[in-house]
Amino acid sequence: MLNLSVLTDPGFNPHSLNKYASIMACGNGYMGIRATHEEDYTQQTRGMYLAGLYHRAGRNETNELVNLPDVTGIELQLDGETFTLLTGETLSWQRELAFENGELRRSAIWRSPKGARFRLDSRRFVSLAQLPLMAMQYSITPLDDQAQVSLKTGIDATQTNSGRQHLDEISVRVIGETGLQGIYETQDRASEVVISASCRLSAPAESCFSAKNRRLGCHHALTVQQGETVTLEKIVWVAWRSEKALSQETFAGHCMKQLDGCVQQGYDALLAESARAWQTVWLNSRVTVKADTPYDQMALDYAVWHLTAMTPAHDERCSIAAKGLTGEGYKGHIFWDTEIFLLPFHLFTRPATARNLLRYRWLNLSGAREKARRNGWPGALFPWESAASGQEETPEFAAINIRTGVRQKVASALAEHHIVADIAWAVVAYWQATHDDAFMRHEGLTLLMETATFWMGRAVEVNGRLEIHDVIGPDEYTEHVNNNAYTNYMAWYNVASALTFMRQFGCEESRFSESAARFLTQLWLPKANDEGVLPQDDTFMSKPAIDLTSYRAQAGKQTILLDYSRAEVNEMQILKQADVVMLNYLLPEKFDRRECAANLAFYEPRTIHDSSLSKAIHGIVAARCGDLAMAWRYWRDGTAIDLGDDPHSSDEGIHAAATGAIWSGAIQGFAGVQIVEGELHLSPALPQAWQQLHFPLKWRNASLEITVDSEALTIVTTEPVQVTVWGVTLTLAGQQTFLCKDFHLSVNGTATRKEGDDA
Amino acid sequence: MLNLSVLTDPGFNPHSLNKYASIMACGNGYMGIRATHEEDYTQQTRGMYLAGLYHRAGRNETNELVNLPDVTGIELQLDGETFTLLTGETLSWQRELAFENGELRRSAIWRSPKGARFRLDSRRFVSLAQLPLMAMQYSITPLDDQAQVSLKTGIDATQTNSGRQHLDEISVRVIGETGLQGIYETQDRASEVVISASCRLSAPAESCFSAKNRRLGCHHALTVQQGETVTLEKIVWVAWRSEKALSQETFAGHCMKQLDGCVQQGYDALLAESARAWQTVWLNSRVTVKADTPYDQMALDYAVWHLTAMTPAHDERCSIAAKGLTGEGYKGHIFWDTEIFLLPFHLFTRPATARNLLRYRWLNLSGAREKARRNGWPGALFPWESAASGQEETPEFAAINIRTGVRQKVASALAEHHIVADIAWAVVAYWQATHDDAFMRHEGLTLLMETATFWMGRAVEVNGRLEIHDVIGPDEYTEHVNNNAYTNYMAWYNVASALTFMRQFGCEESRFSESAARFLTQLWLPKANDEGVLPQDDTFMSKPAIDLTSYRAQAGKQTILLDYSRAEVNEMQILKQADVVMLNYLLPEKFDRRECAANLAFYEPRTIHDSSLSKAIHGIVAARCGDLAMAWRYWRDGTAIDLGDDPHSSDEGIHAAATGAIWSGAIQGFAGVQIVEGELHLSPALPQAWQQLHFPLKWRNASLEITVDSEALTIVTTEPVQVTVWGVTLTLAGQQTFLCKDFHLSVNGTATRKEGDDA
Repeated sequence: MLNLSVLTDPGFNPHSLNKYASIMACGNGYMGIRATHEEDYTQQTRGMYLAGLYHRAGRNETNELVNLPDVTGIELQLDGETFTLLTGETLSWQRELAFENGELRRSAIWRSPKGARFRLDSRRFVSLAQLPLMAMQYSITPLDDQAQVSLKTGIDATQTNSGRQHLDEISVRVIGETGLQGIYETQDRASEVVISASCRLSAPAESCFSAKNRRLGCHHALTVQQGETVTLEKIVWVAWRSEKALSQETFAGHCMKQLDGCVQQGYDALLAESARAWQTVWLNSRVTVKADTPYDQMALDYAVWHLTAMTPAHDERCSIAAKGLTGEGYKGHIFWDTEIFLLPFHLFTRPATARNLLRYRWLNLSGAREKARRNGWPGALFPWESAASGQEETPEFAAINIRTGVRQKVASALAEHHIVADIAWAVVAYWQATHDDAFMRHEGLTLLMETATFWMGRAVEVNGRLEIHDVIGPDEYTEHVNNNAYTNYMAWYNVASALTFMRQFGCEESRFSESAARFLTQLWLPKANDEGVLPQDDTFMSKPAIDLTSYRAQAGKQTILLDYSRAEVNEMQILKQADVVMLNYLLPEKFDRRECAANLAFYEPRTIHDSSLSKAIHGIVAARCGDLAMAWRYWRDGTAIDLGDDPHSSDEGIHAAATGAIWSGAIQGFAGVQIVEGELHLSPALPQAWQQLHFPLKWRNASLEITVDSEALTIVTTEPVQVTVWGVTLTLAGQQTFLCKDFHLSVNGTATRKEGDDA
Repeated sequence: MLNLSVLTDPGFNPHSLNKYASIMACGNGYMGIRATHEEDYTQQTRGMYLAGLYHRAGRNETNELVNLPDVTGIELQLDGETFTLLTGETLSWQRELAFENGELRRSAIWRSPKGARFRLDSRRFVSLAQLPLMAMQYSITPLDDQAQVSLKTGIDATQTNSGRQHLDEISVRVIGETGLQGIYETQDRASEVVISASCRLSAPAESCFSAKNRRLGCHHALTVQQGETVTLEKIVWVAWRSEKALSQETFAGHCMKQLDGCVQQGYDALLAESARAWQTVWLNSRVTVKADTPYDQMALDYAVWHLTAMTPAHDERCSIAAKGLTGEGYKGHIFWDTEIFLLPFHLFTRPATARNLLRYRWLNLSGAREKARRNGWPGALFPWESAASGQEETPEFAAINIRTGVRQKVASALAEHHIVADIAWAVVAYWQATHDDAFMRHEGLTLLMETATFWMGRAVEVNGRLEIHDVIGPDEYTEHVNNNAYTNYMAWYNVASALTFMRQFGCEESRFSESAARFLTQLWLPKANDEGVLPQDDTFMSKPAIDLTSYRAQAGKQTILLDYSRAEVNEMQILKQADVVMLNYLLPEKFDRRECAANLAFYEPRTIHDSSLSKAIHGIVAARCGDLAMAWRYWRDGTAIDLGDDPHSSDEGIHAAATGAIWSGAIQGFAGVQIVEGELHLSPALPQAWQQLHFPLKWRNASLEITVDSEALTIVTTEPVQVTVWGVTLTLAGQQTFLCKDFHLSVNGTATRKEGDDA
């Protein structure tokens, strides 16, 4: 027994419907289904999404993740009254997502306005074993008297993305006694979705079917005796394709056959099969903690759950959306979040998936080349927002200024070019963690070359040195600056890595090497000042600072923009999120501990943390600097981004990157896992609230199990592996335990690292 | 004081939300707005429609009346709780549509789940004085304590037609302190809709605006003291155009200026202005009865209300949809209902509107010609379903057979050709009632000629006589028959009228006249049998009859099709609706009273009345035959089509034709108004439940006021007019009273007409 956490919805509340629909969403990387209640509520947004299924619904719109016809809705009538938790009385309540097997369950005893009590149980899951499969059960037990029960469910294609319709209904069918099938095509005819469902009731009922106004329905009506339970079992197969090798009829027939196979197995067997797949996930990637409160373990399980549910491990033609497969925020587009916040988890637990994510970028190189070309640069300029095609998907214009009617060009797509170097960084990290030479030779070198080529063309010569002008670094509150430290260092690292790996793999081209060598010598890399603070860009240090206390208290809500215009914010020392600190995090070999601490001390008070990506990075850097109190505070704040009290924090989906950050905060923060000069380093130091931290880690061909407590670090490895532990480089095999006291570390639970131990 | 009825919603019930949203809908012929509650309910369908604004939303779809962005929704939060009548307790309730001024009002005292009581009042109307104008007020009064009130409203473009989106959002703006404006275009770019709104609160509040996901919102938050009332006044201007003479900016600017003018006037002044326009309507077309129950008067007021609200009197480029402007049933298409069921009301009360409706057909002649041509016939074959362009809009295939996956061709569009003659009939009736020679010369003759030409090409020669094969008459349960009596007689009447009027207007063409004369001589007109029964078609009389009692008991629900296939029904003596009886109604001069009574006696028991168009016609013919009991039963049944108890009767909109039938049942039934040989006939006979019937009537250049009670008929006319009263032709001037006893009529309230008095 793994004893996994459950995520609970504390009680029905109309205000938090969409938060729980997002954070308790089920998914398997192929499809995601929001955890909406079976019955409708006016403010409840249903959602079913398929990774990579994007479409543009009209003018002034961008490609977005298509909200598919709903299959989870059930309209229940009890003695003629429509069941809703808004009326009557909820006498008992339990609603939870069980991470162990991925089952979302609700169990309630409800008293109707007429006074009769009913037990209502529902369960459902999205299968991790058979990707197109969703199954659910819905049970009704009248407790006080017999009851007239009527159930209506089916395939409801009236769903939209906030009114934007993507799908044409091509045909709807009823097949056999229990089968329903709807065939839909995106309006551009590029993709076809076939939804097949079986709806079976456990007792004889008057049943009929209907098809009208994009709703294909199955209706059951029956009398249920007091104490008897009637259960609707609905099994759904959601297939899609964008090639049409088979005829529609044949394809639809195959889908029905797949569904039939599942129906034969039945809910419990299908759940068991999926639970086994989840067990493998937990064994290979679960982080366990002994902590003062079970919340921390729950947050870590929550993170791994969504890191699995959102990641299209099956298909390298798509990547991870900013809200995973849990909602429509950011239109389901893919950002740098994937490489910087999500890839580390995969790198260290399931490197094949990390490879897939990089293959996605490689497959989409043509869009990146086109974007560079259109802007007059060589190489590959990856889109700031990406969907299925690799074209730039960032809306050309931001949301309209409703006061002036003016639409502003979106600056990120124009100038937030660091994503190019971020992808190169991820390529290097992947190779370092895997030594996957085949990947480096086939895709990696191309990615490194193309990205490096971009930077070499992007830089401009000023008085004999190369500078990078007019960019936006990760801190989006400082736009259109020159020599953003993050960008320049990462570009340098990008070009240096390209050169290194081309030499290493014997692919050197003299022209490229010469240009690269010149770039590496001449590119201006901002220097730290006497206090060790690296200036964020050419002008940042000369700007005034203001008191940010009140804005920091409402971090994430961008309240600064209520008091100042963007232009004004741009002219002050105000950071939305980690920028130099982020750089310190990504390139540990480039900055010593004193510099990191100085940057943290200088920039953190100037940072509002209005981006959900900010605090986690500060936390990891703080941990590396030995400030465990700050690290802990930011780790906990990071978990609250979706798991906190704000009932609307996650209405449009979870913050995908934040789940990566929960994992990273534990592993790259408290366990001190980092790659330095291509090698694995560990320097754990647990926060006071944790007594033990345990996690698996993949490193090249070895599988490690690492256990940290306040007194010792134990590593079990399947293969001999070189690790630098608290600054001491060792080759380990089998099981080895390191006592903190041997490394002159304090053992009081707030262990500090020895000065100079790492980086 | 006209003392008009109010239509009341007896109480909040989730099951009947859409019924009352339809029957209490506001409209002015230009725009219709469903009477949805301001707060959302999951099963409540909002709707705002503009006459003539159609669009096709995708493949496998047809042109449909576009459901526009919603302006009526208001999300109200009271002390943090979202207001909904599903929770808490409704302590008092009044909801009504006042026909006098067109105001829809709700007044409720509601106790929140937390226990605090609030008075909530809302009022709104669609202006009959300024067509693009809608205004509403929404008031909140905390009764027990001060309360935190938050209101959210705006322009919500997430509305769809059951998931089908027609509009692109082009821009959204906030203008000044209270103005909102959204500009939308149909996805085919043909039409542009500009919705401008002002939202003003009666008390200072924290206010802000938002624009996201097709929702342009205006938010107010404030504290309201106990006993104080805060009122939101929202004024909305809904403009659309399909020509783009002005720039979008200029057009939008004009809209804002119009809105500003209305805002200056304010709700009460705007309502008074609209009420004055309604007063004119009531003076010119209200039917009043002294009856045993006020229900009858309410039904008559209800009919005139919707006959006005649904009719685009302002624009001859559109006509009346099958559900008026109250819902999306039949996609908002225009059927023969307009000419046969709705035109008589306009003809006799506002002939200019009747002229517009015929102009609509004339403007769309090219579509009718095209349809004829495509099918190999000359002349004009008007589409069975029509929208903006005059093209055939009937879906080529009926709803899919979800069992077989087969879509069946829709038979109506293929063979229900009588609509051609129905339109010709309406042209003749219009000229008879108005002597509008200009119309006849310009549009009427063309319509008569083109329709007559169609019939001459449509008929086939069989053994020396002309027959019309493979048609569907009004009775749609009998498909693809030869020599349907209704069709043949109406075609004959069509050709005869064309010939007559061409001669009368000196436009005779010898070739047409010769063909017409031959057609009129040779067309086979089925003959009545010895009992006086006219056979419905060549084969009807030889088919078996079955007991229809159980199906008749559920008239309107098409339950026969649960037991028999359409093919089986076709082979039995089963009528969906009036067919020969309808013919008797339309051509009174062709059939004597004995024949009418014989047809009624024969066909009525064989008729299920599954069409809402059936009973009213039977009622009128029954009244003409003196069977007032039957006439009364059917009139009352006709009112119940929308006003009856069925909570779902009108979910997709009211039955437009049924409102015409309520008027016709009174005027053409009980008052015995008919046009015979081109002249006005009256032979009133009131049902027992009515003591008096009063109504205005236009006849050529005269305005008549007619009063009927059990003893006398009084006619007041503005001009001398020739009328045949109870079979006696007289020329009247001023006021004249006829005593029933002078005509040897019984005066016991069930007056029967003298045998042979009329037709």
